[in-house]
Amino acid sequence: MIAEQRLRDFTVKVFKAIGCSDTDADLAADVLLAADLRGIDSHGVARLSGYVRLWESGRLNPKPRVRVVHETPTTATVDGDGGLGLVTAPFAMDIAIEKARQFGSGWVAIRNSNHFGIAGYHALKAVAQEMIGYALTNASPLVAPTFSSERLLGTNPICYAFPAGSYPPVVVDMATSAAANGKLEIAERAGKRIPDGWVLDVEGQPTTDATAVKKGGALLPLGSDRNHGSHKGFGLSAIVDILSGVLSGANYGPWVPPFVAYLQPVAGQPGQGIGHFVGAMRVDGFRPVADFKANMDQWITRFKHAKRVDERQSVIIPGEPEYEAALDRQKNGIPLVEAVQEDLNKLASKLGVDLL
Amino acid sequence: MIAEQRLRDFTVKVFKAIGCSDTDADLAADVLLAADLRGIDSHGVARLSGYVRLWESGRLNPKPRVRVVHETPTTATVDGDGGLGLVTAPFAMDIAIEKARQFGSGWVAIRNSNHFGIAGYHALKAVAQEMIGYALTNASPLVAPTFSSERLLGTNPICYAFPAGSYPPVVVDMATSAAANGKLEIAERAGKRIPDGWVLDVEGQPTTDATAVKKGGALLPLGSDRNHGSHKGFGLSAIVDILSGVLSGANYGPWVPPFVAYLQPVAGQPGQGIGHFVGAMRVDGFRPVADFKANMDQWITRFKHAKRVDERQSVIIPGEPEYEAALDRQKNGIPLVEAVQEDLNKLASKLGVDLL
Repeated sequence: MIAEQRLRDFTVKVFKAIGCSDTDADLAADVLLAADLRGIDSHGVARLSGYVRLWESGRLNPKPRVRVVHETPTTATVDGDGGLGLVTAPFAMDIAIEKARQFGSGWVAIRNSNHFGIAGYHALKAVAQEMIGYALTNASPLVAPTFSSERLLGTNPICYAFPAGSYPPVVVDMATSAAANGKLEIAERAGKRIPDGWVLDVEGQPTTDATAVKKGGALLPLGSDRNHGSHKGFGLSAIVDILSGVLSGANYGPWVPPFVAYLQPVAGQPGQGIGHFVGAMRVDGFRPVADFKANMDQWITRFKHAKRVDERQSVIIPGEPEYEAALDRQKNGIPLVEAVQEDLNKLASKLGVDLL
Repeated sequence: MIAEQRLRDFTVKVFKAIGCSDTDADLAADVLLAADLRGIDSHGVARLSGYVRLWESGRLNPKPRVRVVHETPTTATVDGDGGLGLVTAPFAMDIAIEKARQFGSGWVAIRNSNHFGIAGYHALKAVAQEMIGYALTNASPLVAPTFSSERLLGTNPICYAFPAGSYPPVVVDMATSAAANGKLEIAERAGKRIPDGWVLDVEGQPTTDATAVKKGGALLPLGSDRNHGSHKGFGLSAIVDILSGVLSGANYGPWVPPFVAYLQPVAGQPGQGIGHFVGAMRVDGFRPVADFKANMDQWITRFKHAKRVDERQSVIIPGEPEYEAALDRQKNGIPLVEAVQEDLNKLASKLGVDLL
């Protein structure tokens, strides 16, 4: 267990060591720490060495000139100048929020960026202003569309965040694949097989081999197979890819550059970097905030008290477990698995930063 | 096979017979015919007698005063005055498009409405203006959230429509349940069992009984079970319910009034009617339309040529089969199953309209 502040200070130092400005290092650390606090350990400091390797390979600009390249009163396109998505996405979300403040809503597409951490961080920035937040990103191609075995899409998350009254915000933050890649790694380490419907092998056949994606297979879209709606998961992933990649002028489909530095982007890229899409809408652009929140509370209460299939398990309100994890971890510290701690300390030695 | 114009004229007459204005009857018929043309037969004239029964039961206002009740430059809330969603949703989309023309984007929540037909119709109105279209609606509660067996959500569709260049628009228009209710009816009529993962029985247990929902069971969210991501399907459905129902001041969750007239709305409704949410964003609010379309064409071409699992089946681009169906049916007519034709002629006799 490690105190939030200690992990935060360490993370800031690492980002400064690769050349980020003080402001950018603080911001990037805040995004990563939010994942660790909210219990989304796969997207927190466990990824820090990945960002550093991307920098080492010359594919991450630590001092980007992030700028608006196209604009209307409520839309904009931001060029991330090859910097951290952890920095470009909050920059873009601030613009969306300011546009929403002035005109009711704001929407920003981002190109020439890198991995932006958890989508929920960005969407929740809008909630803090009594707005509805929206955040999407495309990602390294790992998912095959229905009827194909080729990796053409990322796990492309969709996130909406809504303010509530006496409850925490409702945050739907979900990959559009049936399962996340991290779940395969957990099963592999435990020597277990995975459920049917998560992956295809390299021949395009269903398999329960947890190492299938490593061996050239692909993740399946949400829905798993045609009979259970995998074309819908493919459709959702396509929406994310088009809004994040095509609309911004970033790469899309198989051309999205991989997050891992040991894989090279494929040739003939049509755009720049990876793409995100963020937005904000004022709640009071539609109805008074108090009325909306009262109804949100009723919605949440009703779903929490839904009839249970198993008496021991109630319906989970999206965002509530993450909110509770953050309360707990702010107070009691963040659990780091040994492998991550070792990885971070190797990073520290390499960059001349104090060990964790 | 029946000619489009003949079916359209008939549908217009039916809407006029229940008291719709000429303009509203033309518009409502256009939305229903779009479903029949696009091959989404479950949402076309097959539903006409359902709308009429709703009118007979006093739950549909044929002469609504549809009006904006709340507004900012890019957001609005429309009160449908208990009218047809087939009329209120296009009214709202026109407002969204006009706001987008002026400010880059426009977003309209609609309350006090009824079933709005296919979401794709509304989203495609934006595509005709070189915009990206968005359309959501909540619906009669039939879907149980993960860990519950209670029907608390509709099949709540999500639709995005994107303009392309030389290809038809990409239209993702999908229910957020694993399977549509119509598929159960088809299996029931054929005396077949349905796949695992579509429904729960009244006890909350998985079943392959096609009549389970009729017997008090529930549809499952996209993902089918927790292991395959049903919490994501639930999350998507929640997004649609909140934007359509809570944000507009309509009903939500179990309080959404049923489309079928023989089921009564549950007591203590928190809002008015059912809710929709529509939006439009100018493509050139982000980048030049020609650049976007060129990249859309490349996206589509790449996915169409993805490596196939089965040589006989290529990847299906969302919206393409519907586009091709419409070309075919405009030319060759619309196939009506006998049961629907009989149903429509009963309706005609009752309302004093010429038989089909």
